Amino acid sequence: MPTINRLSTSDADFRQRLDALLAWEGVSDETVLATVREILNRVRDEGDAALLEYTRRFDRREISDAADLEIPLFRLEQARTAISSEQLEALETAAARIRRYSERQRLSSWQYTEEDGTVLGQQVTPLDRVGLYVPGGKAAYPSSVLMNAIPAKVAGVEELIMVVPTPDGEVNELVLAAAAVAGVDRVFAVGGAQAVAALAYGTDTVPAVDKIVGPGNIYVATAKRMVFGAVGIDMIAGPSEILVICDGQTDPDWIAMDLFSQAEHDEDAQSLLVSPDKAFLDRVAESMDKLLADMPREDIIRASLAARGALIQVADMDEAVDLANLIAPEHLELSVSEPERMAGRIRHAGAIFMGRYTAEAVGDYCAGPNHVLPTSRTARFSSPLGVYDFQKRSSLINCSAEGAATLGRTASRLARGEGLVAHARSAEYRIK
Amino acid sequence: MPTINRLSTSDADFRQRLDALLAWEGVSDETVLATVREILNRVRDEGDAALLEYTRRFDRREISDAADLEIPLFRLEQARTAISSEQLEALETAAARIRRYSERQRLSSWQYTEEDGTVLGQQVTPLDRVGLYVPGGKAAYPSSVLMNAIPAKVAGVEELIMVVPTPDGEVNELVLAAAAVAGVDRVFAVGGAQAVAALAYGTDTVPAVDKIVGPGNIYVATAKRMVFGAVGIDMIAGPSEILVICDGQTDPDWIAMDLFSQAEHDEDAQSLLVSPDKAFLDRVAESMDKLLADMPREDIIRASLAARGALIQVADMDEAVDLANLIAPEHLELSVSEPERMAGRIRHAGAIFMGRYTAEAVGDYCAGPNHVLPTSRTARFSSPLGVYDFQKRSSLINCSAEGAATLGRTASRLARGEGLVAHARSAEYRIK
Repeated sequence: MPTINRLSTSDADFRQRLDALLAWEGVSDETVLATVREILNRVRDEGDAALLEYTRRFDRREISDAADLEIPLFRLEQARTAISSEQLEALETAAARIRRYSERQRLSSWQYTEEDGTVLGQQVTPLDRVGLYVPGGKAAYPSSVLMNAIPAKVAGVEELIMVVPTPDGEVNELVLAAAAVAGVDRVFAVGGAQAVAALAYGTDTVPAVDKIVGPGNIYVATAKRMVFGAVGIDMIAGPSEILVICDGQTDPDWIAMDLFSQAEHDEDAQSLLVSPDKAFLDRVAESMDKLLADMPREDIIRASLAARGALIQVADMDEAVDLANLIAPEHLELSVSEPERMAGRIRHAGAIFMGRYTAEAVGDYCAGPNHVLPTSRTARFSSPLGVYDFQKRSSLINCSAEGAATLGRTASRLARGEGLVAHARSAEYRIK
Repeated sequence: MPTINRLSTSDADFRQRLDALLAWEGVSDETVLATVREILNRVRDEGDAALLEYTRRFDRREISDAADLEIPLFRLEQARTAISSEQLEALETAAARIRRYSERQRLSSWQYTEEDGTVLGQQVTPLDRVGLYVPGGKAAYPSSVLMNAIPAKVAGVEELIMVVPTPDGEVNELVLAAAAVAGVDRVFAVGGAQAVAALAYGTDTVPAVDKIVGPGNIYVATAKRMVFGAVGIDMIAGPSEILVICDGQTDPDWIAMDLFSQAEHDEDAQSLLVSPDKAFLDRVAESMDKLLADMPREDIIRASLAARGALIQVADMDEAVDLANLIAPEHLELSVSEPERMAGRIRHAGAIFMGRYTAEAVGDYCAGPNHVLPTSRTARFSSPLGVYDFQKRSSLINCSAEGAATLGRTASRLARGEGLVAHARSAEYRIK
């Protein structure tokens, strides 16, 4: 079996094969739905008692006092000093860069005064309290703590509450150190749907938040979907994806490794390479075969490339751009000689990595922009996680006496057209 | 039975009674879920044929050619000339004001260059195609067409597709005229969950869109929730609400009518008045009793005020502000002498109507800010509908050779800390 699928836009069945590769449905089955529903209800109704019971059951931790679920801040500081100075420096460098980029995203309030003295505007305020879910075990990524926490703090969120499961009491020092670096305010050692429930409804120990962000398994994702409305949530991410467009002039080893770096996330991850140069696609395929054996996560990479990866030959670079806009990839790498011109023609992508020197990996960790990005074609209508996700707007309307009269006449007419007489009368009272 | 509930923060059971009044759960029952699921599946699988069948069943319209579902643009122009010149002028005035305010909300792309030549930025693009749901029958509001359509067009959305049911072939001329004024691109006479399905999945006749906005009944809301992910959606609105804070110096008739204007929407709407002045609350209650009989929608207003309305006495204005921040109302009216100072202390509200001259009704129709606002306490984490809901961002990263080396070293370290070796290698290749 070849390492990766080969497609060409000139194939008669191209669109069909592409659609089959792109198809992804992250459906929660009935068992998951029922389990999560029960967990949410019990934590809402019974609070800490239910939280302790589920932590006993799922994380195998015997705790009798819910207060002991909290990981105190001094423990985070311990982790900060416990990790290697190289790791700490890397975390701090990444944090500083993410912070600097995030600060550009902060929204500001504005207002303007009309000729008659009426003032209109928009008041921007941060969310009061935000919950950050961090997965435990092998999926615990310190970079993810930085990427989710820093924009919230830059937005001005007063209290950022992190939850992280500690199965069998095991904690990840890098994750705790990252929480210290990012300025997380409180940490609770709880996970799963029960952690989402605690954050959404509050218990005596865990305070209720206004929004929950961060990645998690199917139970966490399902719980987030269910509590949406009571609290805000970030997007529910599908498998990670990259689309690389290359003109054939980049070292094929580099491109092969870029595709691997996406594929090593998990078996469902998607790595696509698009080029008009068939010989180059062949060379990348050779590089892959040469480099694969060296990869610690070779099995995951192989499974991902075989199931969802593809080298796609296009007629020309225009067709490559069209394909990118159709696919709306989470990560788009433009490994071409004039990436600025091409980027200007991209309408849909989570993040655009421009030029041969920009590996997606630097964006995942430390370039500055967020690595929480829209997947599964949702870049058609959504954006990277950012400071703006932790701010909200209130409209401001302050009518002068004169403005109330002018606007009141228009409002009254439209209200009567809609049969809403109390609306009309309320406006008419203010007409001098 | 008194017209409206009376509460005081000094009551022992205040918080309990308040929570009971605020409680709202818009749950779709199993029958609705099953019906909507079937409609979505059939329209996705059978396209126009299913759309025609549901339109026959629910709107009692016999149409054999799906192309006849489209209401041509010249029909919109006819409606524009058919309505009274007063109505047209009011629509155009409102549209111009909404457009002017919306233009201030437009996001722009930005980028900056670091010392080593690395460029970081954010590229802002409009959504390609948006669907606007407009309810038929008595809930057809031309103002809602303006409020949903104009921000999308200001954002630069190329194609705005409106769907509106026309039960028994009945169309609302004001709604069609508003669509013409707002610049809607295409209109289809379909409604319900089948219209949402057509917009989400596309049929031969109705093009698939990237996001669906606009209000609808429980079937429409449920369908929107279900297609979310395949397309974007706006918020799912609960009943409309107003909280008025008054210092006791505004004409009680004005305040009574402001409360009515909210209550007349429907029986579930919520009207709350907060004041430290007990005598004033009494006078507003008297005004209500005096004015109610004059209201064409008296029955709806009575039902709404009795079930969900309240006059709430507070100790002082500080407590009024705290209450507003707790309730996070959709509409907040500050009928006080220094509304600017008070507005600065409001952390959560959809729209703030400042001063005695600013009736909520002017905001509903023509002041400029959007009337699509977060309900049911969701102003804690969400914002009014705006131009920003029809734009999205792509992160830009363009590393210089030097930047790739510096960033690559940090990325490599963090990637190895997370056990992701392909990430590390992909960054290391670019270190000169």
